[in-house]
Amino acid sequence: MSPTTETLTAERILEATEEVLRRHGPAKATVVDVARALGVSHGSVYRHFRTKAELRAAVTKRWLDRTSRALAATADDGERAPALRLRDWFRQLFEAKRDKAGADPELFATYSVLTDENGEVVGAHIAELVAQLTRIVEAGMASGVFAPGDPASVARALFRATAHFHDPCHAREWTRPEIRDELDSVLDLLLRGLAA
Amino acid sequence: MSPTTETLTAERILEATEEVLRRHGPAKATVVDVARALGVSHGSVYRHFRTKAELRAAVTKRWLDRTSRALAATADDGERAPALRLRDWFRQLFEAKRDKAGADPELFATYSVLTDENGEVVGAHIAELVAQLTRIVEAGMASGVFAPGDPASVARALFRATAHFHDPCHAREWTRPEIRDELDSVLDLLLRGLAA
Repeated sequence: MSPTTETLTAERILEATEEVLRRHGPAKATVVDVARALGVSHGSVYRHFRTKAELRAAVTKRWLDRTSRALAATADDGERAPALRLRDWFRQLFEAKRDKAGADPELFATYSVLTDENGEVVGAHIAELVAQLTRIVEAGMASGVFAPGDPASVARALFRATAHFHDPCHAREWTRPEIRDELDSVLDLLLRGLAA
Repeated sequence: MSPTTETLTAERILEATEEVLRRHGPAKATVVDVARALGVSHGSVYRHFRTKAELRAAVTKRWLDRTSRALAATADDGERAPALRLRDWFRQLFEAKRDKAGADPELFATYSVLTDENGEVVGAHIAELVAQLTRIVEAGMASGVFAPGDPASVARALFRATAHFHDPCHAREWTRPEIRDELDSVLDLLLRGLAA
């Protein structure tokens, strides 16, 4: 496959950028490296992303979106009872983050640098996750299994109370053997707190 | 006051070590610097702390003990109802950590390096905090206000569920204006979860 014969899409640029970041590290990776990997001029890359900062923000968003897209299906699964859905959603979030940290530690370290420099992208990601949680809490309140309250602020509290299991600053602790049991204990307590 | 005329106690060495660490930073501070600050030979320092690593561990422990000692009074205050004691204890823990981070950011950064290299000391500190929490939970279960359960594992879950408000990796978020309200929302949820 000759890369130049394919249409240069934003998605192809982002894929190449991730690979370049993995290989060169976030401090050294340049737009010229990305263009070279794709066999195009750096001008072609700039037609899709006006600046290097914009490209880095977009690749960060893509990485974070992979997690939130996978979780949306669970959040909106009306077949499952809200309490069960909530538990599954947090387990899935934990597993997704732990797998990202464990499967490719170098890429994870790269994205830690990128998330640090892209506070707005991270803020939008967290807002999306809290919005998904809010939908589960709303469903629980609507059906009367959860005590009444403001779904959005309850969702935020749930997200904060589980930081140990999804905030990357805790990644080192995610390989502890008891971590799954700890997550379940925290979820037990929170679900009891939610119950009507 | 001439420092050499005073008895050289472990406490005086630890005070001087903290000051030296603050001034030189954790990478550069040496035992010779500490001895010089006290006007004694480095041999005199080594009579109290056999190695530099031992001295750094001891100064880390002293820093962490300041927080846990202040909290013990709240944990064991039998005059206050367990639910109230629990809420006060977590607020105090949050305020102590936030003040340490905010009042002297350089010293806080120094201690972040020291805690990273003294995992055992940090482990003992967390065990002490969870033991205090366990005593509050026990009191709540004994009086029937909290649902029955294993106090130690409930205490661990409470500690994990509040990581956002005391783990130093979240320090950057402790100046957000809504953080106190968020802590209260999390505590509301947890206390509902504990209730009999």
